[in-house]
Amino acid sequence: MDNINESRFERGTRALAEIDGAGGQKVVDSLADIAPDFARYIIEFPFGDIYSRPGLDLRSREIATIAALTALGNATPQLKVHIQAGLNVGLSRDEIVETIIQMAVYAGFPAALNGLFAARDVFQEKHSLAA
Amino acid sequence: MDNINESRFERGTRALAEIDGAGGQKVVDSLADIAPDFARYIIEFPFGDIYSRPGLDLRSREIATIAALTALGNATPQLKVHIQAGLNVGLSRDEIVETIIQMAVYAGFPAALNGLFAARDVFQEKHSLAA
Amino acid sequence: MDNINESRFERGTRALAEIDGAGGQKVVDSLADIAPDFARYIIEFPFGDIYSRPGLDLRSREIATIAALTALGNATPQLKVHIQAGLNVGLSRDEIVETIIQMAVYAGFPAALNGLFAARDVFQEKHSLAA
Amino acid sequence: MDNINESRFERGTRALAEIDGAGGQKVVDSLADIAPDFARYIIEFPFGDIYSRPGLDLRSREIATIAALTALGNATPQLKVHIQAGLNVGLSRDEIVETIIQMAVYAGFPAALNGLFAARDVFQEKHSLAA
Amino acid sequence: MDNINESRFERGTRALAEIDGAGGQKVVDSLADIAPDFARYIIEFPFGDIYSRPGLDLRSREIATIAALTALGNATPQLKVHIQAGLNVGLSRDEIVETIIQMAVYAGFPAALNGLFAARDVFQEKHSLAA
Amino acid sequence: MDNINESRFERGTRALAEIDGAGGQKVVDSLADIAPDFARYIIEFPFGDIYSRPGLDLRSREIATIAALTALGNATPQLKVHIQAGLNVGLSRDEIVETIIQMAVYAGFPAALNGLFAARDVFQEKHSLAA
Repeated sequence: MDNINESRFERGTRALAEIDGAGGQKVVDSLADIAPDFARYIIEFPFGDIYSRPGLDLRSREIATIAALTALGNATPQLKVHIQAGLNVGLSRDEIVETIIQMAVYAGFPAALNGLFAARDVFQEKHSLAA
Repeated sequence: MDNINESRFERGTRALAEIDGAGGQKVVDSLADIAPDFARYIIEFPFGDIYSRPGLDLRSREIATIAALTALGNATPQLKVHIQAGLNVGLSRDEIVETIIQMAVYAGFPAALNGLFAARDVFQEKHSLAA
Repeated sequence: MDNINESRFERGTRALAEIDGAGGQKVVDSLADIAPDFARYIIEFPFGDIYSRPGLDLRSREIATIAALTALGNATPQLKVHIQAGLNVGLSRDEIVETIIQMAVYAGFPAALNGLFAARDVFQEKHSLAA
Repeated sequence: MDNINESRFERGTRALAEIDGAGGQKVVDSLADIAPDFARYIIEFPFGDIYSRPGLDLRSREIATIAALTALGNATPQLKVHIQAGLNVGLSRDEIVETIIQMAVYAGFPAALNGLFAARDVFQEKHSLAA
Repeated sequence: MDNINESRFERGTRALAEIDGAGGQKVVDSLADIAPDFARYIIEFPFGDIYSRPGLDLRSREIATIAALTALGNATPQLKVHIQAGLNVGLSRDEIVETIIQMAVYAGFPAALNGLFAARDVFQEKHSLAA
Repeated sequence: MDNINESRFERGTRALAEIDGAGGQKVVDSLADIAPDFARYIIEFPFGDIYSRPGLDLRSREIATIAALTALGNATPQLKVHIQAGLNVGLSRDEIVETIIQMAVYAGFPAALNGLFAARDVFQEKHSLAA
């Protein structure tokens, strides 16, 4: 890999560590045997390019991600990582719960309910499984 | 309608006016001939119950809604109303654009692209059509 | 086409005419130049096989279809055809509106709202465009 | 909580018990430590407001819900609760199976297949886990 | 069942065996007690009608199916069956991984990530569970 | 922008031109006033990183994209761009139609039907609107 890609990679590695903590690294490691390039893309694009952009603070970015993953309802492991990430960047448990409850309006009560169960798991276990 | 429901209704009416402005009232009016009870539910539950809750400020609530509707990708009129609502409660155009761009990570580039086109429409026209 | 396929085809043609009326035939016709085999499949599988099954009356089948298409929110032309189909098989406007309103609980308020607007269009125009 | 909210709450509690039985109460209880207000909303809005409306009988309402949750395919615990609810309000196993099979047409064969597996679980276990 | 349906059924049975192998038959068997007609439909329509069509080779058909199920993200058992099916009809592990990675662009990184985890399971276990 | 990012950008620009032709450039241009950085990301990540990967030929990549966008059903402008892109990289109209028809199995008949209508539009107009 060349210098400049390393630079996106390095910036993404720092952002991933700051935001997702151990959960992010676990995801990256879990891809080593199946798609190591995809692990690199996760670091470079979402974290190196997007989360590193100025113009929206990390708390707001995690609210956006928790909202979207709750609404989509088909990526529970990633939702859990980002509920933990929300705590990591300074969201309170209440703010996370409020964000998830609000999704009942836009994606239905089952989506919000399953989001709340994911939050309970994260709050209880304080560790999570995927990106 | 009884007193206390009116109280949710009144609280919701104030919240709807503050957040969605003219766009919200248009939606309510548009339901008069097909499902007036549903117009009342929109005022009472999303606005009277949810957006009126303490624990998450309106700017954060609109980021969550813009993120979710961009990610779901099947409710463009409502996304436009909430892009306008985001401006109404103090989000900058840049913050809205950042929120939508971030959805490329969670729902794909077409979802983000269509969200950006919705934002461009709202920024240009400064009026929108649904809740 | 051989006898027995014709039998599914004939049964499906009758069911399509009974349920979707002119709207169904329009869809079949509209496929003539792009995918005529798919038009045959529509007649044979959904209508010849599924809607022709005993065990659930057509009113209940149309409630199920209107509910699902409202919840999915990405097939408005087909939702309109089935709102008309609901009227054709004996559902009242109120029953259709109730079904759509209920989807706010399972797929969110925007999905229900867009479903209600589709119903208003069908009730006003009394003709529709796709299957 | 004031009188009139109690009235929606009481009406919703009765509807929840009639429709979802033990499954509904389990969901409400499971929210006690994470989002008790959301438990109240589930009772008040879906059950107190929507399922309590005249204009569509409970059998038809459960057909609509089973259809929608099968089609969405991302809320299996809630689908199971409503398959049990369908039995509670008088749907036969055959009517439930017919509703789910029909979803192959509108949401694809995997959605219908996973819905059928959910139904088999409920029919075998006769108890379910979420709302 | 009559002759001609048997002919679709026989053609579908051959296609199912060729494509899905043991995984497909398991699905069919698993439906025996809940919806045997739906097992027949799976054989007749997807396999007897669609996969048996000329005009697109089976390798391309499995790429299409793996792409769609990864993007939808709510049918993991069926995705696994079709990752195995892809191997059965001659796709390399790399081609399957490339198809899944590409879905990050169209359905987001979590969808691609969960698809890759499904592929790793299939590659490791070499057996799968549903259609 | 530095050398290496230009290199991804240049590679992506070539891939975009080869695959999407005029349709791709239109999308990039359309973002100039709302989110020019996102236009750059489209060129760099989907086209510079993903479509430029060896291991899957462009015909197969377009089959995957057409399948996914048909199944998701909420990004018609992008589906049209990629139906045109399929033609650009050597898919026949029949192969595109077969891919779309197959989606009836995985995402339902309405998704396939709307995909076929998108294909008919592209085949007739020979120009398209978004990425």
